[in-house]
Amino acid sequence: MNHWFNEAVAAIQTEFLNAAESRQMSLTKPPGALGRLETLAVQFAGWQGQEKPRLDSVAIAIFAADHGVVAEGVSAFPQAVTVEMIKNFASGGAAISVLARQQEADLHVVSLGTAFPLPEIPGVLKREIAPGTANFVEQPAMTPAQCLEAMSVGREWVDTRMAKDAQLFIGGEMGIGNTTSATALICALLDVPPDVLAGAGTGLDDAGIAHKVSVIETALLKHPARDAFSVLTCLGGLEIAALTGAYIAAAQKGVPVLVDGFIATAAALLAQSLNAGVRDWMLFAHCSAEQGHGKVLQALAAQPILSLGMRLGEGSGAAVCLPVIRAALALHNEMATFAEASVSEKLSSE
Amino acid sequence: MNHWFNEAVAAIQTEFLNAAESRQMSLTKPPGALGRLETLAVQFAGWQGQEKPRLDSVAIAIFAADHGVVAEGVSAFPQAVTVEMIKNFASGGAAISVLARQQEADLHVVSLGTAFPLPEIPGVLKREIAPGTANFVEQPAMTPAQCLEAMSVGREWVDTRMAKDAQLFIGGEMGIGNTTSATALICALLDVPPDVLAGAGTGLDDAGIAHKVSVIETALLKHPARDAFSVLTCLGGLEIAALTGAYIAAAQKGVPVLVDGFIATAAALLAQSLNAGVRDWMLFAHCSAEQGHGKVLQALAAQPILSLGMRLGEGSGAAVCLPVIRAALALHNEMATFAEASVSEKLSSE
Repeated sequence: MNHWFNEAVAAIQTEFLNAAESRQMSLTKPPGALGRLETLAVQFAGWQGQEKPRLDSVAIAIFAADHGVVAEGVSAFPQAVTVEMIKNFASGGAAISVLARQQEADLHVVSLGTAFPLPEIPGVLKREIAPGTANFVEQPAMTPAQCLEAMSVGREWVDTRMAKDAQLFIGGEMGIGNTTSATALICALLDVPPDVLAGAGTGLDDAGIAHKVSVIETALLKHPARDAFSVLTCLGGLEIAALTGAYIAAAQKGVPVLVDGFIATAAALLAQSLNAGVRDWMLFAHCSAEQGHGKVLQALAAQPILSLGMRLGEGSGAAVCLPVIRAALALHNEMATFAEASVSEKLSSE
Repeated sequence: MNHWFNEAVAAIQTEFLNAAESRQMSLTKPPGALGRLETLAVQFAGWQGQEKPRLDSVAIAIFAADHGVVAEGVSAFPQAVTVEMIKNFASGGAAISVLARQQEADLHVVSLGTAFPLPEIPGVLKREIAPGTANFVEQPAMTPAQCLEAMSVGREWVDTRMAKDAQLFIGGEMGIGNTTSATALICALLDVPPDVLAGAGTGLDDAGIAHKVSVIETALLKHPARDAFSVLTCLGGLEIAALTGAYIAAAQKGVPVLVDGFIATAAALLAQSLNAGVRDWMLFAHCSAEQGHGKVLQALAAQPILSLGMRLGEGSGAAVCLPVIRAALALHNEMATFAEASVSEKLSSE
């Protein structure tokens, strides 16, 4: 079947990538001495089609939804927290709210459906599909139609609500229970047993993690299909489907995405599985403290920029990474070349 | 002998450290979910004596000087680059110039003595002690009097030229050949053979590194004294001595220091060896790509914040780390507590 999410992504503009690489070699520093900061600037040049790329306009969307699997007792926090945190995002007190303000990034919140009623809140877009997913231990988390609709919410947000001049997309997520869903998704896609990937989430103890593993084992047996769309439908979350759709739509539009933590990386893996080209538009912000994150990053051949032991989600790790990328671009754009500064170059032989 | 650098450092204000730790536990996130960002904020609270610490005023001083050991052919760049880069720092085209501007940090340059003449340049303080060190393969790099004077230059800069309201000190260094000096210093202090620590510096190939190792081996045999001051005198650099003095003076004044890369870490190791209390005022910005850096950091029980494959010096790695620290403080100061945001706390049992 032909879906929008199978359509080709935008092309990297390799001539600007090459020009930026040459520029890096001419700047007043030993070649390679800025390490990762050099490759970041070069990547942005290829994405933006500019030898001197900029990062002024950053769009953050947090997709939020509840998870039926919470009925199995897989989270350290009560389900009411999903709605409570949506309010906190909007009123400016959450981690991502603080970071978005500090980094002058646009922050939007989209609810795909919560177990507790969500009032109308300025700044929160309600695109409710269901009051959370079904408990995937008992039945598929979503119907295929719900899953497609949730993916479309992500796509539509990128296509119609994201600022026209956005140069980077950060997707965040909120949903009590969603590390369980993300772990199940990754286990199914990578064929890895849950005990290798399952972690503490918001704060489970060892017994809690063991229980989470057995819940996921049950779910994986219950839902044996392993194509990406079936996996997402059976084991995913509404917010994870929206994030997956948003990543694909951003890559199709030619806007790079800065992937956050464990749950966002599950969505990135889904997006890549559904449309391999999307990977070229992804940058991975950090390796989180959630147990399985390093392994998924490896499977995606991703080299995270930061490793700060964060495990909060909400897009927070990606937001902390923003100023590092901005430093990389400032260095690339503003440093003097050897010729401009009359600095001698490297000796030709040692 | 009683030197200024043996005098006690300022005291950490533990009551504010504890208050900040409590505050972190009350913010709307799972406890510990901000990882390293939480401990950074708590450390600054103890340093500043404020439950909500700030980082508005950052002082960067680059100490520059030449190295006699360059005569042995240990650098990939010609010695003229030391003076050329001092000019580049002042005219705004160097990496640290760009970063200081972006991060709104004060940038100062202090020359301790260069092999090529340095003209008067606005913004560059000349405190020349000698036209670079002596070649330490043949004789001590400095006389004890020169070494004490270079350390005093660092101290005086901190005491009289650093902004009165500085909340963080970043020391940078410039001096062709100074990875050779830094490697020799660390080998002597940690009793590690040079082949374990010696790296590419600004860009040596394998044969160049092997030669550098044999130069350092010769120097270590030539200068057998192993007390920190003798080691610094015999194997150090004027800029490394100034940096060592500046670190100690900052800790005595109660200003934390953000240690940059390999050479700065050699100065940090010297400072700690001369005055153990200084370690409490040190934060390590990054693990560089220079071969031996990880090992020295380990010896200092340091946990670097970033690891971006940088190997430039100049304070550049520390400057890239600044916005990460500022993000940590913004989160600490501005996030809502569970009570303020009416968010439910963690369930008491799993």
